[in-house]
Amino acid sequence: MSEKLSGNILVTGTSRGIGLELVRQLVQQVGLETHLYACCRKPDESNAQPLRDLAAQYPGKISIIKLDMSDEDSILAAVQAVSEEIGDGGLNLLINNAAINRPESPAPLSATEKKHMMDVYETNVVGPFLLAKMFLPLLQRAAEKHSPENDNGDQMSCRRSAIINVSTLISSIEKCPETFSMAQMYPYRTSKTALNMLTRCQAEDFKTHKILVAAIHPGWVRTDMGGEQAPVTTQDSVLGMLQLMSLLSDKDCGKLLDRQGNPIPW
Amino acid sequence: MSEKLSGNILVTGTSRGIGLELVRQLVQQVGLETHLYACCRKPDESNAQPLRDLAAQYPGKISIIKLDMSDEDSILAAVQAVSEEIGDGGLNLLINNAAINRPESPAPLSATEKKHMMDVYETNVVGPFLLAKMFLPLLQRAAEKHSPENDNGDQMSCRRSAIINVSTLISSIEKCPETFSMAQMYPYRTSKTALNMLTRCQAEDFKTHKILVAAIHPGWVRTDMGGEQAPVTTQDSVLGMLQLMSLLSDKDCGKLLDRQGNPIPW
Repeated sequence: MSEKLSGNILVTGTSRGIGLELVRQLVQQVGLETHLYACCRKPDESNAQPLRDLAAQYPGKISIIKLDMSDEDSILAAVQAVSEEIGDGGLNLLINNAAINRPESPAPLSATEKKHMMDVYETNVVGPFLLAKMFLPLLQRAAEKHSPENDNGDQMSCRRSAIINVSTLISSIEKCPETFSMAQMYPYRTSKTALNMLTRCQAEDFKTHKILVAAIHPGWVRTDMGGEQAPVTTQDSVLGMLQLMSLLSDKDCGKLLDRQGNPIPW
Repeated sequence: MSEKLSGNILVTGTSRGIGLELVRQLVQQVGLETHLYACCRKPDESNAQPLRDLAAQYPGKISIIKLDMSDEDSILAAVQAVSEEIGDGGLNLLINNAAINRPESPAPLSATEKKHMMDVYETNVVGPFLLAKMFLPLLQRAAEKHSPENDNGDQMSCRRSAIINVSTLISSIEKCPETFSMAQMYPYRTSKTALNMLTRCQAEDFKTHKILVAAIHPGWVRTDMGGEQAPVTTQDSVLGMLQLMSLLSDKDCGKLLDRQGNPIPW
């Protein structure tokens, strides 16, 4: 059996969809020593009401943090706010979930402009790049304070110190011929493929610090972005993702996995 | 033996390095009916003197076109200039060679800023994306005018209609653990990985038009970008690339190949 996730956990894009469900399931399953940092773009507006309700339901467990992944100053302010609150423990788990898809699906080439390519890359790749770079000292602190995982010789886990980048099956260059016709989405695809490379670079870069980095495909999920015809509920997707995260160890570092833990080809 | 490249051929980034050498070798080997469009950012400045000299040496064979891949208006103007000159023949071969690398090698994470990530993606991915999108009518025209390739049933070739995206070995996510320590280069790596996905999407998208799309790794080449310690001369790299392009057919569409024609894993 896997040990539950614990420690200080930060999730981006938590006002709805997978991000909101990650916070909901995490707050129900984690112990006393765990604190959640739930980031979203506009915590004071009406679309963040479900997140605010959740935080009110679990007093002292969830800090809502204002974060716009497309705005470097916003990222810096969020990192500072978390750093001040987190104290000596460091950050155990950073889940980069926030992402955008432009233009609207199915997004054929003819409808795709330069601005779409740039905006989607900025939020889906450069945001996670900057967040990881700025949180690196807190991730290192968590890794240093936490003893190695188990007697198998594993050094890394999502309880010790980890970055999980939420990717997608359609980031797979290998599988593009199978998936292209149903969802062209040049900006989204190229951004998520780049996020996979970022994941692999970070895995190499941070392994000396014992920080685990992996990318996860949540499935085709029935969210605002996934659409109503998607086969997987948000609840099932997140249940699987959290179970997988609790099991990840050294051998998974630098991989793209579906939520059952199967590797997806690059 | 392979048939030589021919028709209307456009190359980007031709004021130096691989791009200049592509124009030099192409102009020497192509026949009477071939015309080269050599694009560079600043055709009137001193660093474009070798290109201007080459054009003067082969009167009427080379049109020098002003093109800044980071500037959408510049791309549009270049496409219009080429369209007016090219007439009914269409564009047979588009070689996306122009690329930048920021910050300077070895470009560790600590030296890498948001601006580097955005600028490199803009020039290395969004530029080729826009150029292909805008040239699509001219590429289609070339494909329609040119009869299928040979009796093997092959429909596609670089003589008929093709896009070649110049990529790199270090775009390979699979090989990242082998290559990361010698060249971290987060912006360049993520951009070239995204370019591979773009290549694969274009290959799917344009196959109904019989336009071949592939990515080529030129080797680690002794250019301003590659550095003095690089093992491959620009001449040898381009000789191999052009030989490979002349051989490409249906089976190569959507692949990343080294200049010997060996596939590189994504």
